Amino acid sequence: MKEVRIGLLGAGVVGTSLLQLLDKNREKIQRHYGINLQLTTIATRSPGKLQGKTNVPVTDDVLSVTNRSDIDMIVELIGGTDTAYQAVRSALENGKTVITANKALLSEKGRELYPIAAKTGAELGYEAAVAGSIPIIRTLRDGLSSCEFEVICGILNGTTNFILTKMEQEAWDYSTALKKAQELGFAEADPTFDVEGIDAGHKISLLASLAFREYVSFASLSVKGISDLQSLDIQSALSLGYRIKLLGISKRSSAGVLTKVHPTLVPLDHPLANVMNESNAVFYKTKEADSGMITGKGAGGMPTASAVLSDIIYYASRLGSKDIAKENNLFPEAKAFPEPDNLVRYYLRFSTVDKPGVLAEISQVLGRHNISIASVQQKESTSEPVSVIVVTHGATEGEFQKSLQEIDTMSTIIKQKTVAIRLLEKL
Amino acid sequence: MKEVRIGLLGAGVVGTSLLQLLDKNREKIQRHYGINLQLTTIATRSPGKLQGKTNVPVTDDVLSVTNRSDIDMIVELIGGTDTAYQAVRSALENGKTVITANKALLSEKGRELYPIAAKTGAELGYEAAVAGSIPIIRTLRDGLSSCEFEVICGILNGTTNFILTKMEQEAWDYSTALKKAQELGFAEADPTFDVEGIDAGHKISLLASLAFREYVSFASLSVKGISDLQSLDIQSALSLGYRIKLLGISKRSSAGVLTKVHPTLVPLDHPLANVMNESNAVFYKTKEADSGMITGKGAGGMPTASAVLSDIIYYASRLGSKDIAKENNLFPEAKAFPEPDNLVRYYLRFSTVDKPGVLAEISQVLGRHNISIASVQQKESTSEPVSVIVVTHGATEGEFQKSLQEIDTMSTIIKQKTVAIRLLEKL
Repeated sequence: MKEVRIGLLGAGVVGTSLLQLLDKNREKIQRHYGINLQLTTIATRSPGKLQGKTNVPVTDDVLSVTNRSDIDMIVELIGGTDTAYQAVRSALENGKTVITANKALLSEKGRELYPIAAKTGAELGYEAAVAGSIPIIRTLRDGLSSCEFEVICGILNGTTNFILTKMEQEAWDYSTALKKAQELGFAEADPTFDVEGIDAGHKISLLASLAFREYVSFASLSVKGISDLQSLDIQSALSLGYRIKLLGISKRSSAGVLTKVHPTLVPLDHPLANVMNESNAVFYKTKEADSGMITGKGAGGMPTASAVLSDIIYYASRLGSKDIAKENNLFPEAKAFPEPDNLVRYYLRFSTVDKPGVLAEISQVLGRHNISIASVQQKESTSEPVSVIVVTHGATEGEFQKSLQEIDTMSTIIKQKTVAIRLLEKL
Repeated sequence: MKEVRIGLLGAGVVGTSLLQLLDKNREKIQRHYGINLQLTTIATRSPGKLQGKTNVPVTDDVLSVTNRSDIDMIVELIGGTDTAYQAVRSALENGKTVITANKALLSEKGRELYPIAAKTGAELGYEAAVAGSIPIIRTLRDGLSSCEFEVICGILNGTTNFILTKMEQEAWDYSTALKKAQELGFAEADPTFDVEGIDAGHKISLLASLAFREYVSFASLSVKGISDLQSLDIQSALSLGYRIKLLGISKRSSAGVLTKVHPTLVPLDHPLANVMNESNAVFYKTKEADSGMITGKGAGGMPTASAVLSDIIYYASRLGSKDIAKENNLFPEAKAFPEPDNLVRYYLRFSTVDKPGVLAEISQVLGRHNISIASVQQKESTSEPVSVIVVTHGATEGEFQKSLQEIDTMSTIIKQKTVAIRLLEKL
């Protein structure tokens, strides 16, 4: 039987779930895959916390593990880009297979790590880094490897999807929904990474790079989160037949790759509209196989640990095979499609004074920028500002930005900054 | 560069699409995977049809290809269980990797083929055999390999899903919808395999075996198709909040595995309810990663060929690697869960005479079999038979069958055989 010796770095929620899973599945993995997984050592900041929970030797010296010659595979569950970076770098330099759940590390430092792996022949698995238990990395690398992708997009952050679901279903405002998410452990004390779209940005940059086999850097993305979304807009969108979702979107044409994160009005009959609570989903469109979608649990100790273990099994089966053909992960840099040229549609909520001619003035500005109106909704109101909701037809992002700048300075009719949320583009 | 020599058997719709895809992707596969795929020879019944379409030598002698020592991999796209079986058997005996899209072959003969593969060390890929372009086999084998499955089920036949969609949306009866599907090329001239649930049965038996790693034979399944479904029931179900889908369902408990195919009332808020037209979907539930679903194109030349090519790439990268750990495909036979003990709910449409006390008589029989009623719907009617629609709470399949037998012999009140369709079980 093939023996694979593993060093585990990090023993937090995912790490301890992995310890349980490894114990439970050891015999099954031997029987089904002919692999004997040997957890050799664990490195964690607080070795004392593991006392009594495992028989495996524990250390607080990460690099002592990545440098050990009797270890074949490093599982990095530390998180962040400091110690984790040092450890993964060291492991790859030593030719060890690395399994990680660290999207920030890969999105920000992958460009440095992959050449090292290519040089030493080490492999780097990161199924658990994107969309938790959804096996989207394996799907892009193997399941759909023959396909030419045109679009990859998705609901990639469970925290924000939970908050949006609650804002809709309970008619809560953003801060109430965030507080509930924090109480339930779905959101961190400092939720910035999640709610401002940074986490989704890391993930869509990884997915886009893999789908298009061109490097899409996180730095090249435009990212907007959900922290200024109002319950009113969520309800208004719903009454118009749309559900607001925070999407990571990347699309590729001959003119380049455009990748971004923003709240999006998704038509209710689109499969992404029905992914609720903390679930994640990845939607794709390819030339050969049309469109498809994968949904599942996006986070949580056990779902993430199961993705880590699936990755361990996959790479363990390949370990030490000299004749195996390995995928080339050194992608050329993607040519960026200029966002101002992108054709989009918008939901616009103007906060106006209550006097005749307001709608005429607004639509004149839009018209001058070649933006035509698909629908207008204005409810009777007894107080200012009056909400005028416009859903537009398609125009370029650049024209939208110009027209909104213009409208928001029309102080005689506009009382508050216009709320502008994009509709799901024709994908 | 690793060179892999391929023999292609069959040059129908999928085979000719594959020829195009191979040409288009040859250079990309070299660059991304370091594999040079060499199509060495093609075997087809009518070699003349390929004249001018390819430079590859063509023969009509299938076994001359599977016996060639200079060929590493056989791609079987013949279909059926006669020639295809001889060919795949011969290829595996000769130690060649086999890629096939043939669900009937695997479902009916897999039990004979896998031991041969195990003996010679050959690998057998069949991503394209189930759900077309949806990479569910790769997902079960690799992406979710650490998970313990509780349920796998899905919409596994595009023809029947297209027919059901049209029966709902156009209010067509079954035969009109079938005729349209045949005109559009979604259904065969003899549609039996599709509409009677046999194709879905082959596929769910393969998925269940892989998910549970226990052999579920096609012969052990109970299979019911859609050919006696009436438009009235589709519309009635919809008004009750359900959409009727033909599902392949397999669930596992400590008491055994229950696998079946039947039309099912799926609640409209379940993701399977929104998979329309010729799309397919696979829904799963695991202990570690909760539930998830994959959707996509279930059939068609190019989607299926793309799944074949993804499989070719995957197994080509592994070919010739002696140190690779291979999955054990010799599953023990699954213990069958007795269907009469299964807890189900039913949609029942009774066709009754128009006189007082009918509902009382029916509900007495149901009550005697411990079946309680969740809802009743009876519309005013001027002619007999009167439709009385009952949605039940849960009871065993056995009790339902007994009570329906009893009710259908009550000739003083029942005018036609009762229509009975199961609700989606709590999965």
